Parts: sequence; structure tokens; C-alpha cells
Amino acid sequence: MRVACGVEYDGAGYSGWQAQPHAPSVQSVVEKALSKVANHPVQLCCAGRTDAGVHATHQVVHFETTAERRECEWLLGSNANLPDDVTLTWVRGADDDFHARFSAEARSYRYVVLTREVPSALLRRRVTWVHETLDAERMQAGARYLLGEHDFSSYRATACQAKSPVRTVHRLDICRQGDFIYLDIQANAFLHHMVRNIAGVLMAIGRGEQEPVWAQEILEHRDRTRGGVTAPSGGLYLVGVQYPTRFNLPEQGMLPVFG
Amino acid sequence: MRVACGVEYDGAGYSGWQAQPHAPSVQSVVEKALSKVANHPVQLCCAGRTDAGVHATHQVVHFETTAERRECEWLLGSNANLPDDVTLTWVRGADDDFHARFSAEARSYRYVVLTREVPSALLRRRVTWVHETLDAERMQAGARYLLGEHDFSSYRATACQAKSPVRTVHRLDICRQGDFIYLDIQANAFLHHMVRNIAGVLMAIGRGEQEPVWAQEILEHRDRTRGGVTAPSGGLYLVGVQYPTRFNLPEQGMLPVFG
Repeated sequence: MRVACGVEYDGAGYSGWQAQPHAPSVQSVVEKALSKVANHPVQLCCAGRTDAGVHATHQVVHFETTAERRECEWLLGSNANLPDDVTLTWVRGADDDFHARFSAEARSYRYVVLTREVPSALLRRRVTWVHETLDAERMQAGARYLLGEHDFSSYRATACQAKSPVRTVHRLDICRQGDFIYLDIQANAFLHHMVRNIAGVLMAIGRGEQEPVWAQEILEHRDRTRGGVTAPSGGLYLVGVQYPTRFNLPEQGMLPVFG
Repeated sequence: MRVACGVEYDGAGYSGWQAQPHAPSVQSVVEKALSKVANHPVQLCCAGRTDAGVHATHQVVHFETTAERRECEWLLGSNANLPDDVTLTWVRGADDDFHARFSAEARSYRYVVLTREVPSALLRRRVTWVHETLDAERMQAGARYLLGEHDFSSYRATACQAKSPVRTVHRLDICRQGDFIYLDIQANAFLHHMVRNIAGVLMAIGRGEQEPVWAQEILEHRDRTRGGVTAPSGGLYLVGVQYPTRFNLPEQGMLPVFG
């Protein structure tokens, strides 16, 4: 049978989601924990392969198993075998045609920037710190150019292996709360480094180094070498994955909010 | 001259604020960083000596120095010499009669409890996790008995060295937001483990194990051995210190808030 799960993790200690030889990955530790409960090797497929240092409050995965376990047995058993920087948040038996990656209609990320004179001890590796202020309204003006379907070649990593550079951004909201800027983005799917490259461009606009229309100019170049700086990984969180309602899965995890 | 500073720290890596032989303390790392900037040994006096694992967004300290430095030189120079789990958040030249401990009229702490089925990877050692739900209204009903001036002998650690067990609680508010319970307490001063002992009693009341009036019954025993369980340190934050307005110091740090 097929099983779906939600995973929350602190990405700081991992080289990313995906299993790699000689590097710690979230995928490996979750597979190891589930394999112990299943009593056979488990292979995971995920909704969004996050990079090194990127966090998730709602990564969604699925796996095949011959083991018969109740949902709470998967949940408690796996958590007992996971390190404390990775948590299984829910487990659901899934339809055979459910696929964590291919059934997903959209993914949501939150990027968090702390704008104050000094960094934060408590939020190190959890937010991106800049010592200058950022103009959230300018950032929102830049963000508007990225809404909808576009060729995001200028916003993808040079190493990105996706066949098509076309993605559809459903939502890109910038909001300031106190010293924090929250960038909330939802798209049908994301290219490699896409959120961090968008964040880098919008931060340059927020800093006043560039006009809002620069976000569009970069888009039109369709050339990564003419793009902006990739923003650091520590401020990025995968917070939601949307599936057709017939799969009846949780859509969102905890939202990272700070004081 | 006398200098006052604000300190933010993640207490997880420290045996507490106070310098101790053979154990890492926040005081030692801050003194070391300030001593480098001052170019002479610096000794700190703090507003609230937090325990091992307890965090602060607004610890206040003062020190004496013969060095002449601008406030931003102290701030940037010290932060460059601090580990990333401790941050100096502000520096102010202070009046000679200012004393971080004795001038303080009140201290504020926040205690955070996560109530959900599974722990949180991202908030490990930042919140206290309980897998059952807690009734915030029952907790608030219990909290009311602790407001005002009382002998808090039953709520102090047996090792507590304060001369008097009498303290005045100005405010004790319990609030639920989603899966989180926030306990906000302000008092003129706190006894050793006082907030964690109050949190332990209120959590037992919130769980339904005890009636709200139990908080008062414990108080009346004036006997620690008849008190409740000490709640874990990781959910506790020193968030504010109030001084007479003539000292013109910041009153509060970042508030720990979660999604």
C-alpha cells in the first residue's frame, strides 16, 4: 500500500532533502526511520527537493510498503527513530494513484528576512539577516511583475535540470511585521534556486539599489548570468503543498512567524 | 564610565548566565567579547540570572570601563567577537548610579508551550512540547491566585539563595494561539526557578489533573516539597526589564512568537 506523510525539518544540519553519498540528507534519515518501523527498506518520493540549509514545516512524501501499521504507529515509531531536527508531523494511508511530486498542483514557500542593526542569536540560520532596512512596498511592486506564467530562466540555477523553464506564480506577497519581512510565494512548481533568486532580486529592489521594474527586465533576459544574487538558504521554508481535494491531505504546516 | 547593554541569547548551549568554572556560560562569552573591545578585563552585572537552557531576547547588563568607545564600536566590535548564539542588541552609556540588577523595577518572562501530537524539529529547545492539549482558561483561573504580593516559598528552588521569599507578581497572562500557549509574567523580581515552577503548576491545571485553586493551595503551604513539577527550561525567555524612565533604556526585546 501507499502511505503519505508530512515532514518538518531544520535544514541547517543537512546538505538538502535529497540523499547523496557522503553527505547528510533529510531523505536518508527519514527513510532510515520509516524502514525500521516497516521492517523493510523504504524509498521516499517528495513534493519539493529543498536545498542545503532550507527548512520545511510541510514537506510531503509518499512511499510503498507491505507492512501493515496504523497511522499512529508509523508516526510515533518514526519519530522515536528520528534525530530531533526532523519530525514526522502526520501520516495518512493514500490512494494508489497519489504521488507526492506529480499529484501536487502547487507548492508554497515563505522567505523570512530580519532587518535590524544586529543579527539574532535565537534566529541564526532561521532567517536571513540584513543590517539595513528594506522597503516592502517597493519589493511588492517588483513582485507584481513575476505573477503569472513566465519563462523563469533568469531565476533558475545554472545547474537546474528541469526540462522547461516555464512556471506559473499564483501568489507573491511581501509583508513587513516589525523588523521582519515575509515573502510568501505559491507557484505550480519551482525551478532550482527560484525562490532564493527571486528573494535576492526583491531584496536589491527593497534596498533601493534597483527599481521595481528590474524584476521584469531580468525575467525578459531569460539568462541566469544577467540575474541577481541568490539569497541565503537559512531564511527559506517549504510551508505548504496543494493536492486535488480528493486526496484529502493537510495543505499547510506551521508558519514561521517571529516577534 | 558605566555602560549598559542588551543581550539576546539561545540558552541551549550554556549552563546558564552566570560564569562557572568548567561550564560554558553566557556571562563568560560576553565578558570575553567586551574585554577585547575595551582592551581591559570587563566584569558584567546582569538583571536576571537565567538558568541552563533558558533564553533571553532582552537580558540587561552593565559594566565599568576606562575605554572610550562610541556605542556602535562596542556593539559591532563585541558582536564580531561573540559566537552566533549570543548577540549584543544595544549599547548605551549609563548614569553612574545605574545598576542592571538593583535599578530594575520589574522583569518580564515569556514561557512557551507547544501542544500537539508530535514535537517540533524547528522549535526543539525553543518551546516546551506536550502531546496533550492544555485548557488556557483553566490555567488563567489558576494564575489569578498568584497575582500580587505573596510568599513564593513553594515556588522557589530548594537551592534558592534569596533572603526573602516574598515577590510581587504584576501580571500573569495565559493566551492560546493555535497550538501554542504563551504564559507572560511580570514581577518585581523572581526567585530561583519561580517561573518554571509556576509554569509546571499551571500546566498540571491546564491538563485537568488539578483544579485552578491548587495554585493557591501550593502557595499557602510555603513549602517547596509540596509544590508542583518544575517545567523544562527550553520554553523560557527573559524578554524585558523595566527601569525608572530617567535611565531611558529599551524595555523589551523581540517577543518569541510562533506559527
